Amino acid sequence: MASSSSSSSSGRRLNIDNINPHVKAAKYAVRGELAVKSEEYRAYLQGGRTDLPFSEVISANIGNPQQLDQKPITFFRQVLSLLENSVLLEKEDVLLNHLGYKKDVIERAKKLLKVVGSVGAYSASNGVPAIRQSIADFLERRDGFPASQSDIYLSAGASSGVNTLLHIICKDENSGILVPIPQYPLYTASLAVLNAQCVEYHLDESKNWGTDLTVIKESYEAAKAKGIDVRAIVIINPGNPTGASLSESDIRSVIEFARQERLVILADEVYQTNVFIGEFISFKKTLRQLQKEQPDAGFDQVELASLHSISKGMVGECGHRGGYFELVNFDPDVQQEIYKFVSIMLCAPVIGQCLVDLMVNPPQPGQPSYELYKKEYDAIYDGLKERATALHKAFEQMEGVECGSPQGSMYLFPSINLPPKAAEAAKAEGRSPDEFYCLRLLEATGVCVVPGSGFGQKDGSLHFRTTFLAPGTEWVGSIINFHKEFMDKYR
Amino acid sequence: MASSSSSSSSGRRLNIDNINPHVKAAKYAVRGELAVKSEEYRAYLQGGRTDLPFSEVISANIGNPQQLDQKPITFFRQVLSLLENSVLLEKEDVLLNHLGYKKDVIERAKKLLKVVGSVGAYSASNGVPAIRQSIADFLERRDGFPASQSDIYLSAGASSGVNTLLHIICKDENSGILVPIPQYPLYTASLAVLNAQCVEYHLDESKNWGTDLTVIKESYEAAKAKGIDVRAIVIINPGNPTGASLSESDIRSVIEFARQERLVILADEVYQTNVFIGEFISFKKTLRQLQKEQPDAGFDQVELASLHSISKGMVGECGHRGGYFELVNFDPDVQQEIYKFVSIMLCAPVIGQCLVDLMVNPPQPGQPSYELYKKEYDAIYDGLKERATALHKAFEQMEGVECGSPQGSMYLFPSINLPPKAAEAAKAEGRSPDEFYCLRLLEATGVCVVPGSGFGQKDGSLHFRTTFLAPGTEWVGSIINFHKEFMDKYR
Repeated sequence: MASSSSSSSSGRRLNIDNINPHVKAAKYAVRGELAVKSEEYRAYLQGGRTDLPFSEVISANIGNPQQLDQKPITFFRQVLSLLENSVLLEKEDVLLNHLGYKKDVIERAKKLLKVVGSVGAYSASNGVPAIRQSIADFLERRDGFPASQSDIYLSAGASSGVNTLLHIICKDENSGILVPIPQYPLYTASLAVLNAQCVEYHLDESKNWGTDLTVIKESYEAAKAKGIDVRAIVIINPGNPTGASLSESDIRSVIEFARQERLVILADEVYQTNVFIGEFISFKKTLRQLQKEQPDAGFDQVELASLHSISKGMVGECGHRGGYFELVNFDPDVQQEIYKFVSIMLCAPVIGQCLVDLMVNPPQPGQPSYELYKKEYDAIYDGLKERATALHKAFEQMEGVECGSPQGSMYLFPSINLPPKAAEAAKAEGRSPDEFYCLRLLEATGVCVVPGSGFGQKDGSLHFRTTFLAPGTEWVGSIINFHKEFMDKYR
Repeated sequence: MASSSSSSSSGRRLNIDNINPHVKAAKYAVRGELAVKSEEYRAYLQGGRTDLPFSEVISANIGNPQQLDQKPITFFRQVLSLLENSVLLEKEDVLLNHLGYKKDVIERAKKLLKVVGSVGAYSASNGVPAIRQSIADFLERRDGFPASQSDIYLSAGASSGVNTLLHIICKDENSGILVPIPQYPLYTASLAVLNAQCVEYHLDESKNWGTDLTVIKESYEAAKAKGIDVRAIVIINPGNPTGASLSESDIRSVIEFARQERLVILADEVYQTNVFIGEFISFKKTLRQLQKEQPDAGFDQVELASLHSISKGMVGECGHRGGYFELVNFDPDVQQEIYKFVSIMLCAPVIGQCLVDLMVNPPQPGQPSYELYKKEYDAIYDGLKERATALHKAFEQMEGVECGSPQGSMYLFPSINLPPKAAEAAKAEGRSPDEFYCLRLLEATGVCVVPGSGFGQKDGSLHFRTTFLAPGTEWVGSIINFHKEFMDKYR
């Protein structure tokens, strides 16, 4: 008997108490209450109202570059326009002489159309073979180690890749995955939906949010002692929300640990070009180096899945939902199951796949589009760095706020030390203090950030995550003013 | 302790015996062994080899119009090219005078860019509000009943929408969903991954694959008797793989049954414009009519989710992964959970969302692009109908093959009556007879179809599904010849 149907007074079949409890358990604050409220404010302002204390909503809650100031890269979009309307290729003279398209734009569009056919057709489930080859070539150039197109899977953004990998790895409700805290909530949300165990390990705020292997081991052992079957470790590098950029020795330690404990490594490397201090080092390169240095140590059995995306970096094309993951040292039978799983959703968006090709294979020196590409790319990079630095300076002068120097990604994740009265006022509203703070900030300034509790934080500590994508300095000033008034009010 | 890690002799963490068993259990024949083999043949032929009995692979296994002959609709792609490279809008004279773009193309692109911002930015999780409004307007025109943008969710193709809905509806391993047999394997595969119960009900081949309520009730009662918590019924109309187009009375019966038994209706209506006999009638319209006719009967409590897509019809833009679903009579709290669930993957591809807008709001009589649009649209429709008819005629003359008249969708699903010797030969290879037949067909002719077992069929019956998208008649002739030789060999 359908027992749940009789529990509700409504005639509807579904209610909040009888749907999938694992979906209900998932939390995703990046698009939660504050984000919804900020959109309401935006609509209100667009309706011509002027009775709010701000005239603009700043969506600093989500890494969405083109919603804010970032312009798409000309070369990319010129090629995409030709892929969408290939008839234009019959008018080469018009493209070259009247529309500013360069020869290499036209050549690239022709080359892609040859391998893709129509961007309106399904591709192979794991992506267009020639685009997978293009990615493999990029990985070989980046890391200095071989890569194979058959190990690469195009995805609808990295999120969809994470979803695929967690679906394969998690066997049952006893399967555990080590996830950094704070983390991008995609991981905890996906594990909640899958009804698998999130085994949290804390990053070390005192060391600019680096990994601390002692802490990781403690979490791992504690989970094992509880009988959890820990199967994989997630690393986000550069970090989200923390912005941390891992050193090579940190990466080596994690791989060594994964080898010892036979853990799959999920390396979320979508911010690999958003690095301001030092340089990005890939898990793949480090793993292959360890294999080379210690050929008999078993590093060839360490499974690594590395994810990348067109959504971040200087590309910033989130709306196109493109990305890929590379599998290293995976069992071929397991790869077949991954292929079948992605087949059920048919394929990643083909125009997004083409954009992945453009990202990993941009114009080169000497090619007609190179100069403009380089100029645009550098301007975005420099702009992000400048904004990060300006925002960091602002945080430095705010009472009770602490924030490490910006290292990478698109975020700062300051800690905030709020007076006890603020905590009491938050409690009276049934909110955590950081949520309370972020809500008041939104109401006072129109700036939408995400409370640290949306990513996880150590008990007793409070944070918020903000992107540094928004242009101008006015909004930064309004945060400073708000903070002062808030502290004065609750001191 | 991580018990599964010690069971394998390899040092790898994951092997075929310890990954997620529910992913392993999923079957998806549309992209299974035969499809993989056909791609190998294609690559072989592209390598210049001439030692196969055919010179071309015909992918009749999947409804992928633009991989075969179907050209994209000019208006759609012109608009998309401007969305991808909005700088072109500054050169209106060039677009109009040198590239054949019409005024309404430029206007539409401007209108979409105004509401979308950049197609490279994330949209709201449920899709661009203005595009949801555009869909709601279309639904009101189509059905003559109100529709609200807040009940519409843009998705990455209908597949992703089905995935969302099943995730919400299925509570645990005891939750059951009534699924037609034969069916598009997305449903069985998704239910397998979710570890929920697929409650099969057979369509009536003798009535051109219509629904038979007696049979549905029997399946439902049998499942209930087993203790399964049956929560929803899937209807694919027009049918896939069957091509059946449901009558209004069939639709009314299903809704009446859903009302009585409190079942959610999942109406997969992606082939709504691929109808050759009669006209498409939506579940939404019929449900609202029943509500109007019997206001107190409780039809306002019947939950309906209706899915549509840009992949099929005369649009045929599968590679762009666009679609939407409309929720009717759903509980607002449940809708909030759906919103959160889709938020985890952020949003559907924005360019695909724009294509949904173009599909539901194409050029109208009197507008500059209308004439060409109408011409292209009609040519695709007529071409599909002609090919369906030609293929059907071919099946009529084949020994032991029976196939109803083409009614809709993109497929024919003939039954094949094979000699006992063929069944024996299949068994010797460890295959089902229909799989055996389809494999021999591929090897002999290069035509790739899907065995009926990939969709489900009554015990003892055999079928295959073929699209009628491929141009020309040569491939149809080769099927006829193959069939004759096959029958002669195993008679």
